Amino acid sequence: MFRKVAVIGPGLIGASMGMALRKRGLADSVVGIGRRQQSLDKALAVGAIDKATLGAAEGVQEADLVVLATPIGAFAELMARIAPVIPPEAILTDVASSKVRVVETISQALHARPDVAYIPTHPMAGGEQSGPLAASADLFEGSVCIITPLTNTFPESKGLITRMWRALGARVVSMTPQAHDRTVARISHMPHLAAAAMLGVLDDTDAGLCGKGLLDTTRVASGSPELWLDICKTNREQIGVALADYIRLLQAMADALADGNLGRLHAVLDSAKEKRDRLLEIRRAASPADEGRNH
Amino acid sequence: MFRKVAVIGPGLIGASMGMALRKRGLADSVVGIGRRQQSLDKALAVGAIDKATLGAAEGVQEADLVVLATPIGAFAELMARIAPVIPPEAILTDVASSKVRVVETISQALHARPDVAYIPTHPMAGGEQSGPLAASADLFEGSVCIITPLTNTFPESKGLITRMWRALGARVVSMTPQAHDRTVARISHMPHLAAAAMLGVLDDTDAGLCGKGLLDTTRVASGSPELWLDICKTNREQIGVALADYIRLLQAMADALADGNLGRLHAVLDSAKEKRDRLLEIRRAASPADEGRNH
Repeated sequence: MFRKVAVIGPGLIGASMGMALRKRGLADSVVGIGRRQQSLDKALAVGAIDKATLGAAEGVQEADLVVLATPIGAFAELMARIAPVIPPEAILTDVASSKVRVVETISQALHARPDVAYIPTHPMAGGEQSGPLAASADLFEGSVCIITPLTNTFPESKGLITRMWRALGARVVSMTPQAHDRTVARISHMPHLAAAAMLGVLDDTDAGLCGKGLLDTTRVASGSPELWLDICKTNREQIGVALADYIRLLQAMADALADGNLGRLHAVLDSAKEKRDRLLEIRRAASPADEGRNH
Repeated sequence: MFRKVAVIGPGLIGASMGMALRKRGLADSVVGIGRRQQSLDKALAVGAIDKATLGAAEGVQEADLVVLATPIGAFAELMARIAPVIPPEAILTDVASSKVRVVETISQALHARPDVAYIPTHPMAGGEQSGPLAASADLFEGSVCIITPLTNTFPESKGLITRMWRALGARVVSMTPQAHDRTVARISHMPHLAAAAMLGVLDDTDAGLCGKGLLDTTRVASGSPELWLDICKTNREQIGVALADYIRLLQAMADALADGNLGRLHAVLDSAKEKRDRLLEIRRAASPADEGRNH
């Protein structure tokens, strides 16, 4: 599928892509580009990449696919360095968790390179771990990958990236960057902040008695704060809307509880159970391979 | 340990207790008492009980341990029926998730039976499934069981119940009903309502794209609405306090996001990650047997 893939930032997602592409024979060579030799050595050791370099401009040479997999905060500077030297006809993709601002930043950096096909994606996989040592060639099996292609450009490259994600086991969903940011604010970004706030409520006595329920409820909060700060920064408005909706519903439940309006509380609990049970079914139907997977 | 244990309401918790006691040879006989023969037949089929009856007064005869394991809403009526007929010197225990009001209800019902030792407990195990078919003899392995004994009464019975829960694999923590209700509101009841509210935020597009993160965050919301309504009803005040604390923290995060105060957001994310990682350590240290268990 690809001769040479350059993964800039082979952390959990980048290294898992490299591993998955290599294992499935979809890339002849995967070069890892990073800021610290130590991380690159780990990515080499786990078989995520077969070459490593600290030089982004050097690393992308001759690549037919360049993957931006660093935290979002590094994108602008990286693009300034690689935009002039990405090989003609290469595909550039990113795997960032927010899209509107990211797509703007990268598109602007590529204004002088109409020959480079930029296909933004967001593979929704990974969880709270990070780094190449947590990478897995099966990370994307049963996951959803959202792609937010620019209007009417590069249909062939878009097709190729779609086929690649399917080959790695993902269900591919196409939407606009705006729709992406709205939905992901609700299903991922806001819940992340909510988990952090929930932990903030606990004191030490509470903490000593926590069971599996609360550990699951707050699992995402073990994710990297730096990574999440970048995400919050680049999807502020939509996260704000989702948080406001959430706070409004919580306050309505608190009011129902205070007023002894148990009928209303019952209705909320009923519809929540119904919705979650439906989510489980949707997910099972969409990703039968995911059943019983050990994350 | 016991000759005859009467489990009133052999659902997930009651049936798991029966199964665990029988499997470990801690009860010569376990009788299940229920309202529907169908549920009792399931409890018999999975080996949670060896006898079944629809009559509570009949079932508790000759029992040396009576376990109240129905939803809280049924306690008052049940106690009216069994209080006069519980055998002298028997131990009565309940496994309800809220304690102050439950302890009041049961203690009042027992005012004419000072010979019955009432030891309130709350085994914190189970998750979102319910019914005897979900029961397991290992359900309590690595869990915490809170006991909220009445002041200075029945030290021997308290010791026996403590040893029983330890034999079933639980770490036993003793506290007052008030302290129990405050802590459990924060680590279990409020998070349950929060999960329900989070699902309320999602529309159908969002739902179709949900990943494992959100399914974990909202897992508890698949629990029985009736059971949870009973819990909310009997622990209203403390859940209200926990909800108010949670809403306040969420609003502070929303404000920080709106103001672009990323330093504050970073601090919250950092301290949340630190706290959850510490929770995981506490739990691992307390329950090494729980590692790698498949729930």
